[in-house]
Amino acid sequence: MELTPKEEIEKRIEHLQSHLIKEQVNSCLILQNVDLFYFSGTIQRSFLFIPSEGDPLFLVQKDFDRASEESPLKNIIAIERPKAIIPILKKQEGLKRIGLECDILPVNQLRQLEKMFPYSEFVDISKAIKQVRMMKSPYEINQLKKSAQILDEVFGFAKGVLKPDITEIEVESHLIELGRRRGHQGLTRMRAWNQDMVNASVLSGNSGSVLTHLDVSVIGPGISPAYPQGSSFNLIERDVPIQIDFSIAYNGYITDAARTYVIGTLPQKLMEAYDVALEIRHEIEKIAKPGVACSHLYHHSSQIAKKRGLEDYFIGTKKNQASFVGHGIGLEIDELPLIAKGFTHPLEIGMVFAFEPKFIFPGIGAVALEDDYVVTENGVEKLTHAEDNIIVIGES
Amino acid sequence: MELTPKEEIEKRIEHLQSHLIKEQVNSCLILQNVDLFYFSGTIQRSFLFIPSEGDPLFLVQKDFDRASEESPLKNIIAIERPKAIIPILKKQEGLKRIGLECDILPVNQLRQLEKMFPYSEFVDISKAIKQVRMMKSPYEINQLKKSAQILDEVFGFAKGVLKPDITEIEVESHLIELGRRRGHQGLTRMRAWNQDMVNASVLSGNSGSVLTHLDVSVIGPGISPAYPQGSSFNLIERDVPIQIDFSIAYNGYITDAARTYVIGTLPQKLMEAYDVALEIRHEIEKIAKPGVACSHLYHHSSQIAKKRGLEDYFIGTKKNQASFVGHGIGLEIDELPLIAKGFTHPLEIGMVFAFEPKFIFPGIGAVALEDDYVVTENGVEKLTHAEDNIIVIGES
Repeated sequence: MELTPKEEIEKRIEHLQSHLIKEQVNSCLILQNVDLFYFSGTIQRSFLFIPSEGDPLFLVQKDFDRASEESPLKNIIAIERPKAIIPILKKQEGLKRIGLECDILPVNQLRQLEKMFPYSEFVDISKAIKQVRMMKSPYEINQLKKSAQILDEVFGFAKGVLKPDITEIEVESHLIELGRRRGHQGLTRMRAWNQDMVNASVLSGNSGSVLTHLDVSVIGPGISPAYPQGSSFNLIERDVPIQIDFSIAYNGYITDAARTYVIGTLPQKLMEAYDVALEIRHEIEKIAKPGVACSHLYHHSSQIAKKRGLEDYFIGTKKNQASFVGHGIGLEIDELPLIAKGFTHPLEIGMVFAFEPKFIFPGIGAVALEDDYVVTENGVEKLTHAEDNIIVIGES
Repeated sequence: MELTPKEEIEKRIEHLQSHLIKEQVNSCLILQNVDLFYFSGTIQRSFLFIPSEGDPLFLVQKDFDRASEESPLKNIIAIERPKAIIPILKKQEGLKRIGLECDILPVNQLRQLEKMFPYSEFVDISKAIKQVRMMKSPYEINQLKKSAQILDEVFGFAKGVLKPDITEIEVESHLIELGRRRGHQGLTRMRAWNQDMVNASVLSGNSGSVLTHLDVSVIGPGISPAYPQGSSFNLIERDVPIQIDFSIAYNGYITDAARTYVIGTLPQKLMEAYDVALEIRHEIEKIAKPGVACSHLYHHSSQIAKKRGLEDYFIGTKKNQASFVGHGIGLEIDELPLIAKGFTHPLEIGMVFAFEPKFIFPGIGAVALEDDYVVTENGVEKLTHAEDNIIVIGES
């Protein structure tokens, strides 16, 4: 197993500490699995106490041995139960204002902490955590590249699986089989609350234009109201767009892409829309570089769609447009930056994002294109390399 | 797609309302996806307001049409944004003490609601929700039976997939392919916070005795510290126990079972432990019926393990024993009842639980048996029917 290098963890903690100082927060408790992995290198039942200055304390209930093997942190202390943190932390400085991951920490967990530390004030530091995690190191970019390689392989493999009159689910099942076998960790993590996530969807024709509760452009009907998204038992049809959206999480690191396939031919309108998707991507690749506002990429994309008369189909239908055309990726699929209207933050070296100019035609389906990019000194580097025309499947 | 019948939803809401009255809570807001599905029949971006008396109001932001198609509730109202609930709810009775799902609702969501309704007190009603969901209706039991059929098929299929010198991951990938193709919804939901869940693990030999952060007996090493559980790239070996744990979620309803396989032969000690697992299961099937305390089933199981000299291996190794030998299943894999020491609640007609007498031998592996049961008038009915001896795989 690959372990997170010591210098990585140290830099991440320093970066978070600089945010704590700026926000006048004296310390924080990291509790969520993904944040624990990011700041400690391991996911154990534990409390990671990070003061705004000095070394963190990693208090591990279970499993201590595994934590010690996987985490490069210095001060790892075994605790028998959660309450054991009280006497240990009371000896520390920095309990006045304690930061928590309030975007995802359940209310009852907060209430327990408030009882344990009645003189502390608990504040939200989820924004700081997201800011720190937004910037990827060369180590992380390398993990993402390995992830993207598996993803590319899945899209190539799909060509051999797609055929008419089998179900979307059946096609998907073969793709997840390959993805898992190659090293997908089994789940794609999403941070936002109540946003169930599976890592694959295969959508034929109208399946690509079904609406759901999620703020995304293309999602699919799913197979039951209990999980109303993703592939369905609908059959793969001829002469309709077939959209495959897939993600891979390799050693935690997620890449996310989409491609469009067809068995036969597509209506002229959809072919043209796909050309516009390619055009938008090409334009964004030209202008994206450090200093350019993320919102500018969003507006530029929308303007091209509008100029081509496709604004009513771009990243969703009229009243159901997604709020973004791109999103950060990393250990979670909904990281920063957002390539969205209100997200004026400029691109910086080390940001990594998925860019997805998709067009949705109600009752007909979606033509989709999604690729992943890392922001470099002079522009962006594409991480995903799967064939990116509309992929025509021959009927043998 | 199968929709939840109107009478189901009505009975569930009545049941919850009786708890609200008992706990002197005037109303509740249901927000989490699974609870929304249970009480409304659909998962949309929405607020389900249930007063302690009278009809609920279902306020749907997205997607309203899909909510109207899938939910049998009467009062479904479209809202443009979350804040739109303020004027609508202010016309209602019952805003004094409002119940929330505080076991899983994030702190920031609570803080938003506190701003929106500054004169209300928000209290935790997650225990009431769990109590209501603990009792399954004939409709739900029927869904669970369909789920169990797919699960049985997966275990039968595994016999043909297992062979020496392929990876655990590869075996798993074929099983998830079949499960998905047959109608697994793609993810198995777990309610508890920070408990990532995948629905499959294939563990050969020592993989079955690795420890992790979770409170479970057998879990596996996983393929990276980023997701430290489940199958690994370890090879399937001869003459060691191979443990397969799998769950299926059909129309939301989860069944969960485990079986033990071997290529060759097992050491005598493990064969004997498996016989004790079968004995424990047999004894529990005899005594489990309405009125019997869940904790009694736990103690009785432990006593048999002890009598047979296996207490140091039962549901975990000495210091790392799981706290339960069974758990409720339904729309989430960690429902009530718990078959655990402190859970003195008696069995009642309609409870459904997984029972898992597993033995873990450090450095050697796990022998595992897990089946699902519904409590009936006179005893328990088994839902899972896969072959349940140690399954010997021939080498052809």
